[in-house]
Amino acid sequence: MKELYIKELDYTTPINDYIELFGWVKSKRKLKNKMFFDLADSTGEVQIVVPKEISNYDKLCKILPESAVKVKGKKIKRNGKIEILALEVKNLANATFTITPSPRTNFNIFDNKYANHVLDNRHLYLRNEKISAVISFKSKFIFEVHKYFQEKGFVFLEAPVLTKLLLYDDSTAFKLKWSESEDVWLSQCCTFQLESAICSHEKVYNITPSFRAEKSRSNRHLREYTHLKVEIAWVNLDDLIKLAEDSLYSFSKNAIINSNKELETLGIDFNPDVFKPPYQKTTYDEAVEILHSKGKEFKWGKSLSTSDEIILTKEFGDKLLWVEGVPCSAEGFPFKRNPDNLKITRTCDLISPNGFGELLGTAEKITDEKELLIRMKEKGKATPEQLKRYQWYVDLRKYGLPPHGGIGMGIERVIRFILKLPHVRDAMSFPRLYGRSPNP
Amino acid sequence: MKELYIKELDYTTPINDYIELFGWVKSKRKLKNKMFFDLADSTGEVQIVVPKEISNYDKLCKILPESAVKVKGKKIKRNGKIEILALEVKNLANATFTITPSPRTNFNIFDNKYANHVLDNRHLYLRNEKISAVISFKSKFIFEVHKYFQEKGFVFLEAPVLTKLLLYDDSTAFKLKWSESEDVWLSQCCTFQLESAICSHEKVYNITPSFRAEKSRSNRHLREYTHLKVEIAWVNLDDLIKLAEDSLYSFSKNAIINSNKELETLGIDFNPDVFKPPYQKTTYDEAVEILHSKGKEFKWGKSLSTSDEIILTKEFGDKLLWVEGVPCSAEGFPFKRNPDNLKITRTCDLISPNGFGELLGTAEKITDEKELLIRMKEKGKATPEQLKRYQWYVDLRKYGLPPHGGIGMGIERVIRFILKLPHVRDAMSFPRLYGRSPNP
Repeated sequence: MKELYIKELDYTTPINDYIELFGWVKSKRKLKNKMFFDLADSTGEVQIVVPKEISNYDKLCKILPESAVKVKGKKIKRNGKIEILALEVKNLANATFTITPSPRTNFNIFDNKYANHVLDNRHLYLRNEKISAVISFKSKFIFEVHKYFQEKGFVFLEAPVLTKLLLYDDSTAFKLKWSESEDVWLSQCCTFQLESAICSHEKVYNITPSFRAEKSRSNRHLREYTHLKVEIAWVNLDDLIKLAEDSLYSFSKNAIINSNKELETLGIDFNPDVFKPPYQKTTYDEAVEILHSKGKEFKWGKSLSTSDEIILTKEFGDKLLWVEGVPCSAEGFPFKRNPDNLKITRTCDLISPNGFGELLGTAEKITDEKELLIRMKEKGKATPEQLKRYQWYVDLRKYGLPPHGGIGMGIERVIRFILKLPHVRDAMSFPRLYGRSPNP
Repeated sequence: MKELYIKELDYTTPINDYIELFGWVKSKRKLKNKMFFDLADSTGEVQIVVPKEISNYDKLCKILPESAVKVKGKKIKRNGKIEILALEVKNLANATFTITPSPRTNFNIFDNKYANHVLDNRHLYLRNEKISAVISFKSKFIFEVHKYFQEKGFVFLEAPVLTKLLLYDDSTAFKLKWSESEDVWLSQCCTFQLESAICSHEKVYNITPSFRAEKSRSNRHLREYTHLKVEIAWVNLDDLIKLAEDSLYSFSKNAIINSNKELETLGIDFNPDVFKPPYQKTTYDEAVEILHSKGKEFKWGKSLSTSDEIILTKEFGDKLLWVEGVPCSAEGFPFKRNPDNLKITRTCDLISPNGFGELLGTAEKITDEKELLIRMKEKGKATPEQLKRYQWYVDLRKYGLPPHGGIGMGIERVIRFILKLPHVRDAMSFPRLYGRSPNP
């Protein structure tokens, strides 16, 4: 088992100490009677000096980058830098080919010209320090989300991926066979299970993959993504907005503070105060007026597009912006309607500036059975077969389901916004279907 | 928004203070000119005294259990117990039917005689205090797992559910259409993605749903379950065993210590030292000998059944027991073979006593391309179509994939073992496919 990591070389062992390191050959150089290579591990890199006297010297001179090696040697200091004078270098796993650009070299891996190549070889380009930094940031971010809600007394409610209840149109969901006679879908949202659970735990959350069976039409959609869902009893829209602001600020700030190295690698200087509440707010109606005043064609009732969001956030100083009261036509059926205007919902969506799009949405949920059935009919969820499937969810309204509401957030979207990634897929470890046919 | 929870009544407000509570009616009684009901929320319950003078008194006398109410009243103490003398009771969400047994009453919900009824009405029985306690324990348990690996420097690597790479036979996986011409499956294990990532992060883990398209044949299998996977570079089987023991002890102990209330509700007194390392160890070959010596028929090469595991753990004092060197025939293809005996793998499975079965498995993974191709052929993974799908995973072996190994654990299995649940499904929020046909 590996005991020593490269970043620990500086302070855990004295100069001239004998050490053992494991890592990957990043690049190599030959100079007179020595060869040099940079050894990389998950924490950093260090130059290894290999004298000609080492028994496998000739073989090592031919070693390809990415070969995994064990180095025994002496820690030395040259020109103020730590190096390792090798006594033994063992090749534990040979690289037998090269790929260009070499994964660990510093190139702009998010440049669109590399996109197909990098996606086709994601299993190798995970070694790239920029992709590595994104994944490492994502790991810390997700943990901070858990930590925030756990510390606030929320219960993590695991919810099934395989479900018969879909938030959006059945046709936009992945369908599969549960049995010979029974279909099942991949969850688009676990609101149904979370709403059930609030009568027990009052405050619940979930982080799970959600699915949309639609080809990505933009740089902010994924077929499979990481979905944070929060559901709480006894709240209204104002409470939800406050909780969304407080939580987004808190977990994002903590993730950013703990990710100096990752942000440095990515060249990102993100001030967490971007998330500091309160945020500015507009209404959907006002947003439509602004768009029209800027000469944009926009039909009332539609969702905002990326270009609409750019115009709107620019109008509000390129900051986070709440858009309240999205029309029923553009929202899911469980969202409560505004009693003063039944055409709009009691929802508020948070959009980010510069085209990074919607980060999260908040919504009061319907508690009245009749209202729910009206919305199901409007949204094409009221065939006899569908009414049967959704029956238990409707029935919750007959059994003491209190006023409640929720927050839904696409984790990759927030990560994309913080790390300024060109595409939301850049925040995924394996965004492309691997092992697919050449021309799917 | 709710400000005060029932458990806080005792110490946050003085006697005779006016308070506001939200919760559910658990049960009610009438006595002379008063009615009494128990109000329950996620933290406890308290008796509400409703005097006849309250305007909606007659309606309240007819209120059904599970109705959600807001109570304004005065905190009083009677016979040493805190009660609320109601000034106003508002019915926020009426229950219009009853279900027997009433979810919040104390009955043995895990009794098999209730199983079908409870599974059919899980959305209501989530309110049962025992199910609630299990879900709450699971929430803390999963968080402690994250915390352990995050604090040890592991990176959470999100891995796709939709995949073309399956650990077990393709026929045991759920299949669906990715596109007109392309199939995709639901992941059985994310080892493929995690193994790729160790060349970047060295230590990675994942907690995600995994899927098996097989009807449950026992009380320890689920079609969808929560899977912990850990993968580490530069380790051998002994390292993996040590990590598995240390982590299982640490996160289980922390979850147990933080769950006094949940364990009390479930009547469970679990000593975390059950998980204290080191555990006893036997080999698969020795296990077969023991089974034969007890008169059990058992064919070398098969997996251990529940009854086999009961016999074996009894032999070792009803404690946790490692079984090392499971035959290749009973293990997945990526697991390394023992170079001294190619019929067995470099794996070690941890089985629990009293029929709770296997909790986790550890395995060194194959780094040699030829060995991997041999195992793929043995396991029916070598048709041209399959070789194409698995190509990138095979190719990792040509690109500096160092010695490595992993741990796989079924989170519901460990929870079942700690909480002594009859069935692993009792550790799921929604174990049955909801909204299915009456006779699936």
